[in-house]
Amino acid sequence: MSDRPRAVILLSGGVDSATAAALTAREGYALYALSFAYGQRHAAELDSARRVARALGAARHEILTIDLRAFGGSALTADLAVPKDRDEKAMGADIPVTYVPARNTIFLAFALAWAEVLEASAIVIGVNVYDYSGYPDCRPEYIEAFERMATLATKAGVEGRQRVTIRTPLIRMTKAEIIRAGTAAGVDYSLTLSCYDPSDEAAACGRCDACVLRRKGFVEAGVPDPTRYRAS
Amino acid sequence: MSDRPRAVILLSGGVDSATAAALTAREGYALYALSFAYGQRHAAELDSARRVARALGAARHEILTIDLRAFGGSALTADLAVPKDRDEKAMGADIPVTYVPARNTIFLAFALAWAEVLEASAIVIGVNVYDYSGYPDCRPEYIEAFERMATLATKAGVEGRQRVTIRTPLIRMTKAEIIRAGTAAGVDYSLTLSCYDPSDEAAACGRCDACVLRRKGFVEAGVPDPTRYRAS
Repeated sequence: MSDRPRAVILLSGGVDSATAAALTAREGYALYALSFAYGQRHAAELDSARRVARALGAARHEILTIDLRAFGGSALTADLAVPKDRDEKAMGADIPVTYVPARNTIFLAFALAWAEVLEASAIVIGVNVYDYSGYPDCRPEYIEAFERMATLATKAGVEGRQRVTIRTPLIRMTKAEIIRAGTAAGVDYSLTLSCYDPSDEAAACGRCDACVLRRKGFVEAGVPDPTRYRAS
Repeated sequence: MSDRPRAVILLSGGVDSATAAALTAREGYALYALSFAYGQRHAAELDSARRVARALGAARHEILTIDLRAFGGSALTADLAVPKDRDEKAMGADIPVTYVPARNTIFLAFALAWAEVLEASAIVIGVNVYDYSGYPDCRPEYIEAFERMATLATKAGVEGRQRVTIRTPLIRMTKAEIIRAGTAAGVDYSLTLSCYDPSDEAAACGRCDACVLRRKGFVEAGVPDPTRYRAS
């Protein structure tokens, strides 16, 4: 056990959460990484989360299994086609098929449970408002409302003894800014996986929305892209 | 499919959620019952939830498996002794060992996900402020904060198209009032199970906090107690 303040960090295995974790570690927090197996088609992202947690020296890494499939479809959790080669305008036009309802709320709720047990002072989530998807649950208003609810949810919060803040270090950063900040903080992005449709060997497709945005981010950041893309 | 408004109801298999469900059905809602297998020692409560959902004519009943044990102990999910024969003062003195961190937040988050998919207009939870435990997440302030967060979490909520209200029909009712209201609404309480420590045949112990409060409720309501208590 360490005397450092503790942070529960939601870790997906992608660029954003790895960067948020690295920035949080640099501030002196002990990291308690939390990932979810929620019926993703790409379980490879959990391997990436494991590698990232290890590389950042997380105090613990828990992977919870939850099944969102009972509630209905999304490309990430059902057998729909992943859209490819879309520009950002097309990505933003509607709710993507990769949408999972109330996902951030569910993930933050579990993080809150662990934070309470750990007496952690922070929950960290790598959302940002420039996400192509425009998910409402990536906006500051939503995060603030969750934090207020979280304070009212626990005895320690109500009594002011242990208030958990929801930290969103990337919330106003572009993908390029995120990649630059993470590179400066020593993130090894070759450990991360963003692709919605990776190969069996966890090579990225290069063409799904997540790959398109990630590639563009590396180009704009002027940082060499270490992603392993598959042929074709 | 029905044209009735839809409500997602959190159904534990106990007195309170069965009553909340019956009152909601009486208002004309189609019930979508949601239960959780979260490592309870007493899986028998899920059988009760199934019976209650069937008796109330729920449109669907989903049981989600989640594992809160990864985060640490509670009598409901770990192997600690269940306190017996306590009076209400003793029950209220501290956070009971049956406490599960952030449980209502996690349950409501899943309910929100399903409500979004179903386009349900209500989420129903059978909390009440007189619960011996004094859990902060049974208070109106908490419920209102969750509702506000939920509105900000979804596109439909933000745009005002589909606002989900969190309904707490029992929030200011005593156990006796709950039992009277449920009896008037036709709830068959012999289908429900409250006990923290039931026998293998799902007979109630009669002595844990939940049994003590339930027994007292039936006495005060002047309603015959149909609970099957075990011998000794």
